[in-house]
Amino acid sequence: MLLQLAIDCFTLDEALAITEEVSDLVDIVEVGTPLILREGVAAVRRLKEKYPFLCILADMKIIDGAEYESRLAFDAGADIVTVLAAAEDQTIAIATHTSEEYGKEVMVDLIGLKDAAGRTSEIEQLGAHYLCVHRSTDLGQRGPGTVHDLGQFKAAAGDMKIAVAGGIDTQVLQYMAIPKPDIAIVGSYITNSENRREAASTIRNHMGE
Amino acid sequence: MLLQLAIDCFTLDEALAITEEVSDLVDIVEVGTPLILREGVAAVRRLKEKYPFLCILADMKIIDGAEYESRLAFDAGADIVTVLAAAEDQTIAIATHTSEEYGKEVMVDLIGLKDAAGRTSEIEQLGAHYLCVHRSTDLGQRGPGTVHDLGQFKAAAGDMKIAVAGGIDTQVLQYMAIPKPDIAIVGSYITNSENRREAASTIRNHMGE
Repeated sequence: MLLQLAIDCFTLDEALAITEEVSDLVDIVEVGTPLILREGVAAVRRLKEKYPFLCILADMKIIDGAEYESRLAFDAGADIVTVLAAAEDQTIAIATHTSEEYGKEVMVDLIGLKDAAGRTSEIEQLGAHYLCVHRSTDLGQRGPGTVHDLGQFKAAAGDMKIAVAGGIDTQVLQYMAIPKPDIAIVGSYITNSENRREAASTIRNHMGE
Repeated sequence: MLLQLAIDCFTLDEALAITEEVSDLVDIVEVGTPLILREGVAAVRRLKEKYPFLCILADMKIIDGAEYESRLAFDAGADIVTVLAAAEDQTIAIATHTSEEYGKEVMVDLIGLKDAAGRTSEIEQLGAHYLCVHRSTDLGQRGPGTVHDLGQFKAAAGDMKIAVAGGIDTQVLQYMAIPKPDIAIVGSYITNSENRREAASTIRNHMGE
């Protein structure tokens, strides 16, 4: 399992400081949607310039204008860009085609979708590389047991890797049923911790292989 | 009918120049999603500072973290912020509550939604001020007749004003059935025109009252 660190409600300077602290403990650094809305894709560019060896995900949550918006992210140095599963099929297809031109990848985010599992095989057919099973933070705290059904996503995901996001902490990871996700996306549990290195290490210990 | 000018695939400097050209011919200036992703909410701030008398809409397309993201937009000077209809109800409710604190407003964007009309009364109950009936640009050109069913939205919209977006030009406006929208959102027809003032005036002539 890979660890993706989501940096959301911070300034660019704070994001750079957080990345400096834990860059050796995470596999993917996510420039979160609020950070991009605040600073623009300059946040992606600065992070990639400073950490060229890190895999950078730009959480653009594209729902339209996929060619222009995905190029914004890839030109800034993103390795992975996100598209909403709620978008039209054409939007997802355009994003994946554009990503192939760059030799980069697309993660499709199921957030908000009512029939999330039912959309999975369509997303796979459209060429996406990752599927993100994502519980909105606006729904409040996630407890143990709220991630129980990755099986139905896995069955339809084909070659897509599966990420899980939204309130992921050590408890959620510990009680998560089999099959486990390929990527655990962790935000505030690490970023809001007083000791971020310790928090990242603790998460890694709960992730298993 | 009001005219909302969408400024999408441009730099901030270009957006300022476009606004300077047509500010007296439009009712609302939309800082489009691609422009915000490119420049951050600084694009909203700069436009509002330069044109404090203009109504500025920040097309943030919020789908999570509504309090933080709507504050980003309102603190930057936005008068209206957009939230996706695909978001959880809580996200829309948090955005409308936050907008009330600022004395500002929320537009909910139906883009991508399969049962768009069916969601309208829920959105109204959540306190949104505007509903945006929005055809994805990734679907390709909109022809006359693709906007034919505003009636079903209007019937469920209550006090919400209705905007229409996605490929709106003079032809679409001309052949649009009754009831007409309250707001016509026009982007490339004006912004990509060689004579933007003439394009904006032509659109106004096709809008009726």
